[in-house]
Amino acid sequence: MPLRMSTLFVRTLKEDPVDAEVASHRLLHRAGYIRRSAPGIFTWLPLGLKVLGRIETVVRQEMERAGSQEVHFPSLLPAEPYQKSGRWEAYGEGIFRLQDRKDADYLLAPTHEEVFTLLVKDLYSSYKELPLSIYQIQTKYRDEARPRAGLLRGREFIMKDAYSFDLTDEGLDESYRKMRDAYVRIYDRLRLPYVIVEATPGAMGGSGTEEFLYPSEVGEDTYVRTAGGYAANVEAVTTVVPDPVDASDVPAAHVEDTPDTPTIETLVAASNALHPRADREWTAADTLKNVVVAVTHATGEREIVVIGLPGDREVDLGRAEGTGVLGEGEIEVEPATEADLAGLPQLVKGYIGPGLSLSEPLLGLESSTGLRYLVDPRVVEGTRWVTGANEHGRHVYDLVYGRDFTADGTIEAAEVRPGDPAPDGSGELELARGVEIGQVFKLGTRYAEALGLTVLDENGKARTVTMGSYGVGVTRVMACIAEEHHDDRGLIWPQPLAPADVHIVATGKDATVFEKAETLTAELEAAGIRVLVDDRRKTSPGVKFGDAELLGIPTVLVVGRGLADGTVELRDRRAGTSTDLPVDDAVAAVIERVDAGYAAAGSTRADFRSL
Amino acid sequence: MPLRMSTLFVRTLKEDPVDAEVASHRLLHRAGYIRRSAPGIFTWLPLGLKVLGRIETVVRQEMERAGSQEVHFPSLLPAEPYQKSGRWEAYGEGIFRLQDRKDADYLLAPTHEEVFTLLVKDLYSSYKELPLSIYQIQTKYRDEARPRAGLLRGREFIMKDAYSFDLTDEGLDESYRKMRDAYVRIYDRLRLPYVIVEATPGAMGGSGTEEFLYPSEVGEDTYVRTAGGYAANVEAVTTVVPDPVDASDVPAAHVEDTPDTPTIETLVAASNALHPRADREWTAADTLKNVVVAVTHATGEREIVVIGLPGDREVDLGRAEGTGVLGEGEIEVEPATEADLAGLPQLVKGYIGPGLSLSEPLLGLESSTGLRYLVDPRVVEGTRWVTGANEHGRHVYDLVYGRDFTADGTIEAAEVRPGDPAPDGSGELELARGVEIGQVFKLGTRYAEALGLTVLDENGKARTVTMGSYGVGVTRVMACIAEEHHDDRGLIWPQPLAPADVHIVATGKDATVFEKAETLTAELEAAGIRVLVDDRRKTSPGVKFGDAELLGIPTVLVVGRGLADGTVELRDRRAGTSTDLPVDDAVAAVIERVDAGYAAAGSTRADFRSL
Repeated sequence: MPLRMSTLFVRTLKEDPVDAEVASHRLLHRAGYIRRSAPGIFTWLPLGLKVLGRIETVVRQEMERAGSQEVHFPSLLPAEPYQKSGRWEAYGEGIFRLQDRKDADYLLAPTHEEVFTLLVKDLYSSYKELPLSIYQIQTKYRDEARPRAGLLRGREFIMKDAYSFDLTDEGLDESYRKMRDAYVRIYDRLRLPYVIVEATPGAMGGSGTEEFLYPSEVGEDTYVRTAGGYAANVEAVTTVVPDPVDASDVPAAHVEDTPDTPTIETLVAASNALHPRADREWTAADTLKNVVVAVTHATGEREIVVIGLPGDREVDLGRAEGTGVLGEGEIEVEPATEADLAGLPQLVKGYIGPGLSLSEPLLGLESSTGLRYLVDPRVVEGTRWVTGANEHGRHVYDLVYGRDFTADGTIEAAEVRPGDPAPDGSGELELARGVEIGQVFKLGTRYAEALGLTVLDENGKARTVTMGSYGVGVTRVMACIAEEHHDDRGLIWPQPLAPADVHIVATGKDATVFEKAETLTAELEAAGIRVLVDDRRKTSPGVKFGDAELLGIPTVLVVGRGLADGTVELRDRRAGTSTDLPVDDAVAAVIERVDAGYAAAGSTRADFRSL
Repeated sequence: MPLRMSTLFVRTLKEDPVDAEVASHRLLHRAGYIRRSAPGIFTWLPLGLKVLGRIETVVRQEMERAGSQEVHFPSLLPAEPYQKSGRWEAYGEGIFRLQDRKDADYLLAPTHEEVFTLLVKDLYSSYKELPLSIYQIQTKYRDEARPRAGLLRGREFIMKDAYSFDLTDEGLDESYRKMRDAYVRIYDRLRLPYVIVEATPGAMGGSGTEEFLYPSEVGEDTYVRTAGGYAANVEAVTTVVPDPVDASDVPAAHVEDTPDTPTIETLVAASNALHPRADREWTAADTLKNVVVAVTHATGEREIVVIGLPGDREVDLGRAEGTGVLGEGEIEVEPATEADLAGLPQLVKGYIGPGLSLSEPLLGLESSTGLRYLVDPRVVEGTRWVTGANEHGRHVYDLVYGRDFTADGTIEAAEVRPGDPAPDGSGELELARGVEIGQVFKLGTRYAEALGLTVLDENGKARTVTMGSYGVGVTRVMACIAEEHHDDRGLIWPQPLAPADVHIVATGKDATVFEKAETLTAELEAAGIRVLVDDRRKTSPGVKFGDAELLGIPTVLVVGRGLADGTVELRDRRAGTSTDLPVDDAVAAVIERVDAGYAAAGSTRADFRSL
């Protein structure tokens, strides 16, 4: 049955939503696809639900093609499996928890690794049954601190999550590859550009992971790439470690007065003025900045850690957090507060240093403060530094790493900068922003071990299963498609994803125009073309064209004034072109245009038949 | 793509689940359609999800045909609209509540009247936009005290809920009729027998409602029917009220000793022995039983109420609760406890009466106890009763209603019995049990008033919209279909709802059998028939046939020993018949059988094309 503007449950709006930061949120709201119900929680109106259903169909088809079988888990889950895996605690405030009338603990699942693991444990017992790939498309919940940008970061959202189960690492590699290939096909068919970047395992543990990012300024993720083909999430970039330096001719460390130099900038200026270097000027890269951060562990414990890095680099707390070096699970890292520092008078603000020599370490191995001291990987054996002397207004010069001080370990906590070398030698890094639209993840045995998922191998021995998890943020993907496919007048859906194949606009007051629009609607529907017809009698052409542009169905057929001369107008919303054609050719022309649109997106109309 | 038993994520089980009370739960579990995740919360395995999807397709098609438009609301909703409607309190312990990280109150929605109302208020403003019908198919949550019987009473379950919006009562009547007609088509197509019964509005308020019940012994609902066509939920049956009786020749009430008569049985015996009646024996119907109940109101307040009814009837607390007389919203009614009675020494247990005369009422109007006293509708003006005298071992005789005592009102609190007259005069009532599978409901203006949903009428005046709500318990319906369509060996799905159209069983060790099974599979799939092929090489024919019977695909094609002679065997799981036929005719025969099965259920294969 065709959709009719006269009865369709939609109202287009002139005003943006008050909290709209991004185009997708603004347009999906104004075009009547979604309405906000609560922060990060949305209601789907008929047109929105149709687009969402078509995205889901593409995802389902590619999952099936990759041999994955669809199942469906509850959203409301008992706490126990998540307590066993450690995620009940690790998620902290990030999940919704509740109790039933018997005071049993439940959660609204943010992802389903645990229960997928338990289901396979429940049903399977032999290596012969592997490999297995199962997935669901399901509503997920996360109690985001800052839900934002409409569907881009919601608290109730839809994800496709798939899980693979294999006996061997090679099997996992193969399952991972299949799913990665499926993702490539999915995003291609959704007409969504993507970059595949190396990522860090983060709170989930595991051995290898990549993210699919939609490159966009509205994204929250920063990633890097090189002309040579390297791409990584900024958290996953590893520093190219310099070779050790021969420091045999570096003089012994010496403390100097450097009054009023609490910042790197003032320190460099004072050093050049008071303690000039013979060969060249001092620069920020010669200094070692020691930054105090507070780590809140998953257990709630707060730990103060000092991080030493070249003075010409800022700390990137996200990178520090993602390394896993500071703590496992969901940790939070923030700059230490005045209160934190008040309890540590030995750290003299603006003049913090690791200590003068190994015999009196303030930070680092055998630290007298008991604080962990971690350094940037560029701080290698033999490098010499200007750094704080732990006395107000004084710094130490010619402090050599390995000779005069050491650390408890290294950490990737420095910002990545454009021009930094790529770890794979493929050139200089560029920085860009993106939205995470998918992730493929070799989980390994973490969940199988925690929950006891083993199968008997050929020799009758119990072997722990190795797993992968694979997510697509379905509602977020819809927002990204809207980001990618719009102009300042409205949405422009890829043909297969549009809520209708063609938008027929009947204009004017002539009854024959409306009759012809109905005839064309009926003929196109009979040919399997989904029609939205603007059959409103008292609405002006301007309003109708405005609505058509806002709603974003790419193929528009205007039946209006030209009908008297036997012509109608076929508009291509994407190309911005318009063609007059004889009304008798209209049905064939629309079908041709629509089918070409499907083909361009790697689909056919048959792929979506019952939606 | 065909389903293959060799790789399908399913394991059939020999053992029933420990808590299985009903056939549907037992078989859906054993056949690998669902797995329990928590009390009343289930995971859907691939076959279960396919059947569920097909049921949803039938529901969707009939909703669309009835002119209803699909939307989708969140499950996680802010408390505020439910506080405004009064249901936040009224639901008591029956819903899941939670708080987000900012301590804002949320609930997991049990139904969505409030937010549908608010959405229409948000989008619509004129009478010209009405009528409107919108629906969703969605996961719902109720924190049932006693989740039971698998999918029959769950805590997380799927419902289709539709809502109609009209300007006038006549419009609501029409919307209600359309939706009721759609329900008839839905249950017909799902091959589920149903009875449409009058029901009581209950906690939801509103003006008229009917339930669709699946008649079954496993049902929790009792309903009545007559040969003359009357049908009602037992809560909705109204008593045929007798005419007033002329009591002018009844002697004055008199109190008599009736030692050791705390029960109706002992009272009748003692009355006949000690105070015999001249014209006939005393019977239980001559006595007035006064039952003390405790009402827990939605606010949490506990009220003690006394109900007087003929001694030959038991109290039906469900009926009493459903009338709305005892209290509005979600109330709980239970027999008064010893503790309740201890606080009311004037009520002498076993000998409770309303009082001796109007001048000293213990219960009823101007009651000295302050307790509400309600009587059965059969207690009319002039009726005379033997009842308690509020003294241990004594009863009062010839106590006449209207002359000697009165009540604060009447209540339908007596059990309905087979043989009782139907209120519409259509004959004697029969009692039966059923499962509620749908409800159509004229809500009226209750929600629109509470939430301020008005539109401007022709004269520019604001008018409150009148609403209807219409539910189908989708997952419960699936359980009922399994109840209705099974035998002791397994499930027998109606053809259009089966997870595959045909189950091909390849038996034996002959490679040509498996090759032929593959060829037939490919040919049938190419013809649009969904195939599940049992391609397991090392599984015995007995196990394969057992699995086929348990899984319940109605059309089974056996490729086995007969293939050497050029024949295969077509089995009809429902009829229990089997036909040998030439292998070259197999594809055509299967298609014919399958299409006949769809037609018998009012469907075509095209209705389900992309599932």
